[in-house]
Amino acid sequence: MSWGTELWDQFENLSAHTLKGIDFLEKYGHFVRDRATIECEYANKLRKLVKSYQPKKKDEEEYQYSSCRAFKLLMDEVNDLAGQHEVVAENLLANVLKELTALTKDLRDERKRQLYEGSRLTQSLQNQIDELFRSKKAYDKAFKESEKAIENFQKADADYNLSRAEVEKQRLNMSYKSQACDTAKNHYADQLQRTNELQRQHYRSGLPEVFRQLQELDEKRIKNIKNFIYSAVETEKNVFPIINKCLDGITKAADIIDEKQDTILVIERFKSGFNPPEDYPFEDLSKSNGSNPGSLQNVNSIQPRLKDGGLTVKGTFSGSKIKKRAGILNIFGSRGVSSVCFFISP
Amino acid sequence: MSWGTELWDQFENLSAHTLKGIDFLEKYGHFVRDRATIECEYANKLRKLVKSYQPKKKDEEEYQYSSCRAFKLLMDEVNDLAGQHEVVAENLLANVLKELTALTKDLRDERKRQLYEGSRLTQSLQNQIDELFRSKKAYDKAFKESEKAIENFQKADADYNLSRAEVEKQRLNMSYKSQACDTAKNHYADQLQRTNELQRQHYRSGLPEVFRQLQELDEKRIKNIKNFIYSAVETEKNVFPIINKCLDGITKAADIIDEKQDTILVIERFKSGFNPPEDYPFEDLSKSNGSNPGSLQNVNSIQPRLKDGGLTVKGTFSGSKIKKRAGILNIFGSRGVSSVCFFISP
Repeated sequence: MSWGTELWDQFENLSAHTLKGIDFLEKYGHFVRDRATIECEYANKLRKLVKSYQPKKKDEEEYQYSSCRAFKLLMDEVNDLAGQHEVVAENLLANVLKELTALTKDLRDERKRQLYEGSRLTQSLQNQIDELFRSKKAYDKAFKESEKAIENFQKADADYNLSRAEVEKQRLNMSYKSQACDTAKNHYADQLQRTNELQRQHYRSGLPEVFRQLQELDEKRIKNIKNFIYSAVETEKNVFPIINKCLDGITKAADIIDEKQDTILVIERFKSGFNPPEDYPFEDLSKSNGSNPGSLQNVNSIQPRLKDGGLTVKGTFSGSKIKKRAGILNIFGSRGVSSVCFFISP
Repeated sequence: MSWGTELWDQFENLSAHTLKGIDFLEKYGHFVRDRATIECEYANKLRKLVKSYQPKKKDEEEYQYSSCRAFKLLMDEVNDLAGQHEVVAENLLANVLKELTALTKDLRDERKRQLYEGSRLTQSLQNQIDELFRSKKAYDKAFKESEKAIENFQKADADYNLSRAEVEKQRLNMSYKSQACDTAKNHYADQLQRTNELQRQHYRSGLPEVFRQLQELDEKRIKNIKNFIYSAVETEKNVFPIINKCLDGITKAADIIDEKQDTILVIERFKSGFNPPEDYPFEDLSKSNGSNPGSLQNVNSIQPRLKDGGLTVKGTFSGSKIKKRAGILNIFGSRGVSSVCFFISP
């Protein structure tokens, strides 16, 4: 079934329908554009999220622990995930919207061309019909004048009081008007033939061709909406395996978290290498040699124990050990003078 | 390796480390919360998008065409897709963040409890050490006084000028001071024993138990971060098949688009049922009966043709046909008077 034959008298409706169709295609384009914008905003927010959770300079030391390292890896994956949504947005714009916009323009141009052609053909037929009506009017007028001339001649011919010259004048007039009527009739017949030929041509091939083109245009539009939807879905589906990989990457990041390892790392980080204080010795003053009788020394408390378990002599530990030891010496040094106090952080 | 034995002198560092750890857990919780917010906003935007593209009342007639119907189905799927992101957001909040927040609170409480216990034990040891130092000082003092008393007695005993009563007084004093010194020495010895016992207990079991608890707390925290990450990934992965179904649904929606069917529908919608105008007949006025000689009628132009191809008699068509026909009659009625003009929409 073709618009050309079935809808020969629906020019206006087809004009409106094809316009609505192209508007609808454009509307779908806007939908795709807005969808891409949403993907883009989503990606931006994920990126901003990741950025705001990056470890600060002062916390960098913490990132030796597996949970912190995992979190950093997790954020990298979320960043990649954001990237995939950007890919969706970009491809929706580049592969779908760009083509769609170009097609919309082509369809609008082609529709205008076809409608103009239809209008032109119709106007052309109308002009021919006007011409036909004019020739018919002329034929009507010439026929009436001819009839009147015949009547006048007959009246003159029957009037014996009139001169032959006068009768002859009426005959000549009748002959003249009859000839004029024949000419008008011929012209009318000629115009009628032209009109009917043009009208047949108009309704059998001229307009049907225009409408066929409009139908083709509409089919092209519809077929392409279908393809654009397929293409948009494909765009989204294409990133699926990569998004899945990102999620697997997050799982893998979590896999490295090892609570035992992390607490051992705490030992390595903070161990001073010292042994806990040993027993206070008993100072029997009666056996004392009297030197420094007032001091109570815990002689073993500053004996450093190296991490490899070996013993070392006082004063051979490294700089960092000394730093740690200084704190210990402080505590022990202040023993008996001030209390050993530990601060409990909130 | 245990914090209790290895980090016996790192109370403050462990206090700071466990605090940072819990803060980190909380930070991950904020990350999850922010992530859920992003999912929620994304879903909201998709829903708003769908809402804004719903067909308007005035366009409802257009939605009989397959491309429009497909677009409506597509939007339903996008709505479902939005719903899946809402599910992710909800489950992140309900399954991950809620548990994480509860755990954070528990860990903070437990940490405070352990640190308080550590502080209490340390203070207790310190008090005992203070007591030891006081007893040692008393012993020092008593010893000095005893030595002085001995010296005084010896001095008195050697001085023949002194009375025996005086010498006896010094002996008694010596004996008294010596006894006092013994008592002080015993008290000191007693305090020394208590102190060493408490100190051993403190460094061998008291403090190690506190640190062991802190280590357990830290391991629990780390292990749970791992589980929360797994849970969050699972939450996202769970909606994957459904999101995939939504995309398949969009493909299926596109599948129903049928451009041939749609253009046939246009025929069904707009077809008037009339035949194109037939030829204008030749009106030979010389053979005319004279009635209405000035009109040029296209007698066949309003002969309706039914869709089933049959012919019907003038005036038997239905209401809708009449409406369409009215337009046509208008056009034909105006023929020859005004031009047949078609509007070309922009």
